[in-house]
Amino acid sequence: MAERTLTELEQRDLGRIAAFTDGVMAVAITLLVLNLEVPRLGAGQTLGDELVDLLPSLGAYLLSFALVGRFWVIHHNLFEKLLGFDRTLMTLNLCFLALIVLVPFATDLYDVYTREALAAAVLGATLGLAALTNWAMNRHVLRRGFVHEDRREETAVFAAPIGLGFTAAFLLSVPAAFLSVHIAEALWISTVVLRYPLRRLGGRTSSR
Amino acid sequence: MAERTLTELEQRDLGRIAAFTDGVMAVAITLLVLNLEVPRLGAGQTLGDELVDLLPSLGAYLLSFALVGRFWVIHHNLFEKLLGFDRTLMTLNLCFLALIVLVPFATDLYDVYTREALAAAVLGATLGLAALTNWAMNRHVLRRGFVHEDRREETAVFAAPIGLGFTAAFLLSVPAAFLSVHIAEALWISTVVLRYPLRRLGGRTSSR
Amino acid sequence: MAERTLTELEQRDLGRIAAFTDGVMAVAITLLVLNLEVPRLGAGQTLGDELVDLLPSLGAYLLSFALVGRFWVIHHNLFEKLLGFDRTLMTLNLCFLALIVLVPFATDLYDVYTREALAAAVLGATLGLAALTNWAMNRHVLRRGFVHEDRREETAVFAAPIGLGFTAAFLLSVPAAFLSVHIAEALWISTVVLRYPLRRLGGRTSSR
Amino acid sequence: MAERTLTELEQRDLGRIAAFTDGVMAVAITLLVLNLEVPRLGAGQTLGDELVDLLPSLGAYLLSFALVGRFWVIHHNLFEKLLGFDRTLMTLNLCFLALIVLVPFATDLYDVYTREALAAAVLGATLGLAALTNWAMNRHVLRRGFVHEDRREETAVFAAPIGLGFTAAFLLSVPAAFLSVHIAEALWISTVVLRYPLRRLGGRTSSR
Repeated sequence: MAERTLTELEQRDLGRIAAFTDGVMAVAITLLVLNLEVPRLGAGQTLGDELVDLLPSLGAYLLSFALVGRFWVIHHNLFEKLLGFDRTLMTLNLCFLALIVLVPFATDLYDVYTREALAAAVLGATLGLAALTNWAMNRHVLRRGFVHEDRREETAVFAAPIGLGFTAAFLLSVPAAFLSVHIAEALWISTVVLRYPLRRLGGRTSSR
Repeated sequence: MAERTLTELEQRDLGRIAAFTDGVMAVAITLLVLNLEVPRLGAGQTLGDELVDLLPSLGAYLLSFALVGRFWVIHHNLFEKLLGFDRTLMTLNLCFLALIVLVPFATDLYDVYTREALAAAVLGATLGLAALTNWAMNRHVLRRGFVHEDRREETAVFAAPIGLGFTAAFLLSVPAAFLSVHIAEALWISTVVLRYPLRRLGGRTSSR
Repeated sequence: MAERTLTELEQRDLGRIAAFTDGVMAVAITLLVLNLEVPRLGAGQTLGDELVDLLPSLGAYLLSFALVGRFWVIHHNLFEKLLGFDRTLMTLNLCFLALIVLVPFATDLYDVYTREALAAAVLGATLGLAALTNWAMNRHVLRRGFVHEDRREETAVFAAPIGLGFTAAFLLSVPAAFLSVHIAEALWISTVVLRYPLRRLGGRTSSR
Repeated sequence: MAERTLTELEQRDLGRIAAFTDGVMAVAITLLVLNLEVPRLGAGQTLGDELVDLLPSLGAYLLSFALVGRFWVIHHNLFEKLLGFDRTLMTLNLCFLALIVLVPFATDLYDVYTREALAAAVLGATLGLAALTNWAMNRHVLRRGFVHEDRREETAVFAAPIGLGFTAAFLLSVPAAFLSVHIAEALWISTVVLRYPLRRLGGRTSSR
């Protein structure tokens, strides 16, 4: 099936899978805002105090938004190179989506129990399993030859050093959370911040 | 109208129906996560206990996600083969969507009243009617000749043995729930798990 | 601008407006399900009793789903014929969407205050203004020559007898609600049920 | 990369970015309706009184809907002219979306604390940062040569006089809110109302 152009029907088909994925991720990323609740002032409280108390929730919102956004960019990079797909890819994609949709819940849990290692571990595990599924999709399309020849190297980078590093950072954050939630947080943030150095490590210096 | 390629306008049109359907299913599948509520600890409770208590809800989430995802794959299989459509198909499609959108509610109901036969019956009936509508869509497009000739056999499989088996499993779960909710659950899970054997039974062994 | 094919860029552009509209309508139609709340049993109540009490809410859900679905079909019919668009059309389209997004709220209001004329009037006014905006869009594209020549007659039917009848039914339901909410309900249902006879009245007997 | 047509793959790619953006904005604009809560009548209250009390919330809904709709039109104008994109544009676009998704929260906050300068400042700052990010996207695509030559002038107008005026109006509303929330409101409304005069000022009198 490899090394050919998509027929019109397959093109439409692949477009619909991408569109459904985009739809689910767009809703999931937007539902993150429902975790921010408008404060109802108690006696002797000012709106200013309440808004300051809300800052950690805003931070959790922004972090999760950046992480889901990052997952979207990675997913997008994978699908823009596809020449075909099969049922396995669709099943992996649904598993990936089921984990992404859990992110707003896990973020809310972590936001309510900020100091609890267990809450951080749940968020880390959700993100780690999503990254693992994403890595599995990258490997699968490479093996099945679903990738344009001239973009295969780029995908291989995602399937191996970057994809594994990304997955490892999230999965490591699960045990790390029990030492300190700050280590877990640092690992999450690193996946957003370190992407430029990591790409260079992967031997590719494209402007895109 | 059969056996011809779609004009550019019809192509755009059909794409929009699929896009709207994808949008509704994407929102419905994502709303499932709203059923998972972050626990507020009572006196003497730990987050660990609460999370263990949340496991059945997580199970209900994953099951419904898999089922709606399954419906999406089936709907996608139907629409990727279409050469045309009519108002009847659009009406059936809207009925199908109205039932899919009820799934998050029915899942929440079942999750809150896990041991109640009635709650299981409501979820089973919702899924069964959705499957029935989907089967009716398959039959309709076959009758009206809206399907590519070389993909007609494949659609027939969905319209007859598989589509009916799928519908039957869900509709049977309604009376079965009054014997035991576990039988109903087993029937639901079977529709996800048994799809590979069923496909083979349907006489088709495609890699897709 | 009339009587020509769209350039590739305009095609993409028009597609994006339709996609955004579809997205908003898909979310709005799905949010209707949030009005259905899982009952929490009081003392001496059974789930069966509670579900029977929920039937009017289910009816309100189904009616609003059918009405928003109907609006989607009409909007879809309009956009599939377009050869161009301008800022006025985009502004009218946003007004239309702002009214459609209010439907879940107006439905919930009507569901909570079923016997109150005022609640029925609010729902009727929301639907009536949406129908009016839709009629204005139909007139606008006809005047500006944005419609395929061979589909102009069909659009004219929507702009005049059908579109006006549709709008009138909803707007009439506002004063009618103060006589009896049942008359208002009958007017709403008529817009869904009477579409086949109305089309024939409009002099068009297409299979689509 | 400038002055060329997009390859089929890039076209698909760019379409997906626009689709994801549309999805997020469609969900965000629809979530605004969740701020409207169906009133529960207290003793001696009528539904009419309650609905009158709801009018400011309806006003806040309509204003935010118009503003997010305005942002969508501007974003749409930007993307319809693109010949290419890079990671910087995608990152800016995600920042823009993170701010747009905050609008329903900021609107709710402003609606609950209507007379509080701080709440108006939060809404103004959210809108201002979104406008700033949008302006940065316009500048970026001009610099990188991602815009059709014959549409470059039009984009320049958005990047300079209009884009900056738009951003300035929102950012000015932050300090202005501490003088009077009405000045802040007037500044917000001006961005919707003054767009026709502003366009003419920008030296462009297109029918679109």
